[in-house]
Amino acid sequence: MSDGHPFEDFRTLLDAFPKADAQILSQARKRNSVLTKPPGSLGRLEEIAMWLAAWSGRTPAVNRPMVAVFAGNHGIAARGVSAYPQAVTKQMVDNFAKGGAAINQICASVDLSLKIFDLALDHPTGDISVEPALSERDCAATMAYGMEAVAGGVDLLCLGEMGIGNTTVAAALSYGLYGGNATDWVGPGTGVEGEAYERKVALVEQAVTLHKDHLSDPLEALRRLGGRELAAIAGAIIAARMQKVPVLIDGYVATAAAAVLKAANPSALDHCMIAHVSAEPGHLKLVQKLGKTPLLALGMRLGEGTGAALAASLVKAAAACHTGMATFEEAGVSDREA
Amino acid sequence: MSDGHPFEDFRTLLDAFPKADAQILSQARKRNSVLTKPPGSLGRLEEIAMWLAAWSGRTPAVNRPMVAVFAGNHGIAARGVSAYPQAVTKQMVDNFAKGGAAINQICASVDLSLKIFDLALDHPTGDISVEPALSERDCAATMAYGMEAVAGGVDLLCLGEMGIGNTTVAAALSYGLYGGNATDWVGPGTGVEGEAYERKVALVEQAVTLHKDHLSDPLEALRRLGGRELAAIAGAIIAARMQKVPVLIDGYVATAAAAVLKAANPSALDHCMIAHVSAEPGHLKLVQKLGKTPLLALGMRLGEGTGAALAASLVKAAAACHTGMATFEEAGVSDREA
Repeated sequence: MSDGHPFEDFRTLLDAFPKADAQILSQARKRNSVLTKPPGSLGRLEEIAMWLAAWSGRTPAVNRPMVAVFAGNHGIAARGVSAYPQAVTKQMVDNFAKGGAAINQICASVDLSLKIFDLALDHPTGDISVEPALSERDCAATMAYGMEAVAGGVDLLCLGEMGIGNTTVAAALSYGLYGGNATDWVGPGTGVEGEAYERKVALVEQAVTLHKDHLSDPLEALRRLGGRELAAIAGAIIAARMQKVPVLIDGYVATAAAAVLKAANPSALDHCMIAHVSAEPGHLKLVQKLGKTPLLALGMRLGEGTGAALAASLVKAAAACHTGMATFEEAGVSDREA
Repeated sequence: MSDGHPFEDFRTLLDAFPKADAQILSQARKRNSVLTKPPGSLGRLEEIAMWLAAWSGRTPAVNRPMVAVFAGNHGIAARGVSAYPQAVTKQMVDNFAKGGAAINQICASVDLSLKIFDLALDHPTGDISVEPALSERDCAATMAYGMEAVAGGVDLLCLGEMGIGNTTVAAALSYGLYGGNATDWVGPGTGVEGEAYERKVALVEQAVTLHKDHLSDPLEALRRLGGRELAAIAGAIIAARMQKVPVLIDGYVATAAAAVLKAANPSALDHCMIAHVSAEPGHLKLVQKLGKTPLLALGMRLGEGTGAALAASLVKAAAACHTGMATFEEAGVSDREA
C-alpha cells in the first residue's frame, strides 16, 4: 500500500482491471459448438462455462471452490432495525465454527470449502444515521483484509455475509448509489414489520441525507454507508479479478458491496455472477441496476452465502459438461441435418 | 396384472394413490421452526424439505438419488419434425453408455446414479398423425416396465428422456389434454424453424383431430398421442408414489407424460416437483396447467434429465439443512426479540 490516500491503491486497481481472456474464450466457444447437444440447448450452463473460461483464463474447471463469509457488526443495529439482537452476529459465527448453520450443510452437500472471516465484532461500525460507518483508514484496511479471501488456489469464490442490521446498511448504500425512494430499497430483513419497518425506512432516509454530498465517490459511499463485511467483500471482488478467480455473489448485502465497484468502473463486475435473487425486495432492483440475471430464485433471504453455495453446484456442473462431454465426432453421433 | 383391460391395474392404482404422511410432515415442520435461521428464510429449500418428509414418510434424506432416462423412437420422426435424424436416439443411448453426454457429466458432478432404459428403439411407435402410437397392451407393458425404475432403494427419482421427435409427441399430448391452439404447444424442439416448424404444427393438429374422440380418457390419450418413453415415465411416477419416492420431473416431454396422470387424478403429482422449466415454450404453459412452480429456470432444452439432475443438488442441500442445522437452543443463539 502507498503512503497516499487510503483508497488510492484501490482506485488504481479498479482503473486497471484486467479484461476477459479472448483467446481462451474463443477456444471454449469452439469446443462448445461441437459437443453432443443441439446448439444452445444447455442454456445458462453454456453461458457459465464461457464465463469461467473468459475470467479464469483457462479451460473451465472448478476444483477448489470456496465460500467466504464475512461477518460484521453495525452501530445502526442499536436502533432496533432487526428482529434479532446484535449478539446474534457473534453467536452465528460460533454456530458456523461448530458446523450448525445452513451454510455449513450446503457446503458439505455441494462439496465446497468454507472460510469465516469475523471482522472486529466487538467494535461495531459507526451508526450511519449520525456518522460515517468507518474511517477511511479502517475501510481501506478492511478491504485489504477481504482480499485475503482469494488465497490458496481458490478457483471459484462464493461471497456471503452475516451481520445483524446489515440489510439496513445495504438499503442505505443502494439508495445512496442509485436514488429513488428509501422504500424502494428497505425490506423486512430478518423479519421486521410495522413500526420497526417504518423506523428502518426513516433511518435509511436520515443516513443518505446526512452523507449525500459525499456519495458521488463510490468508495466514500462504501465507508460512510457500508460496514466491515461490505468493505471486505468489495476487497475480495477486486482481488478475485486481479487473480482471475470467477465470483458468485450472494444476496442483498454482498450485492450492495459489489455495486460500489460497478459505480467506480462499469466493467468491474464482469467476472461476477449474481447467484440467487433474494426475497428481500430491494435485491431484485439492485441486480437489475447491475444488468445481471441471477442464476437462482428460490425465495431465500438468509445470507451466509447460502445462495452462492447452491449456485456453485450449477457452476461445477457447467464446467463438467464443457470438459467431459463427447464431441459429435468422438461419439459417432449424427449432427444436424443440413 | 389382471386379465381385464390392459389399463385396469393402472386405473386402480391411480384411484387409490397414497396421501402425504401427515405425522412425519408435522414433525418436520416443528423442527424447521427451531433451526438457526429467521422463519422462512431458506425459502424453497424449506418447502423441499417438507415435501421430502411428506412424500417419503421419513426424516428428509437423499442418500440414493437416481436419474432414470427413458429413450424411445417415434413414427412421426419420419415426417421431418426434428433437426436430427432418428438414428440419433440410438447414438445418444450409446453416448450415455460411454459417459459422453451432458447427463453423464451432471450426474458425476452432483453424485447421482444414472440408469438408461432404451425402449425397443428398432421399433418406432406408430405415426400419431395417422394412427395410435401404441396398442393398449404395448402401452400398458411399457408403463409396467417404467415402474422398474423405482428399485434398489432409490430415495429421489429424477425422470428424463431421449427420443428424436418427442417434443412433437409432447405437444400433441398437451394439446390433446388441455386444448387451446396447436401453436400454444409446438416449439422448436431440437431447433426446427420455418417450413419444418409449420409441418410440425400441422402434424400435431392432424394427430389431435384424428384421435379427438378418445382423449377424455387420459391413458387412452397417452397411448394414442404419446410414445414409449412417455408411457414408461408415467409408470415410474406411479411406482414412485406407491413406494414413497419423491420425484423430480425434467422438461417438456416428461412433464407431458406426468400431465396424463394429473388428468386421471388431480392429486397424482403431489409427490413430484418440476425441476426446471424448459426453453421449449409449451413447457411453461404445461407446468402452469399442473399448478407447479419449477425449481430452476436456466434456459435449457436438452432433455436427458439434465434439469432434474441439477435440481437434485438443491434437494440434497435442502435435506442436509433440515437434518444437519443446529436449533437455536443447541447453538445458544438468541431467538427473535418479542
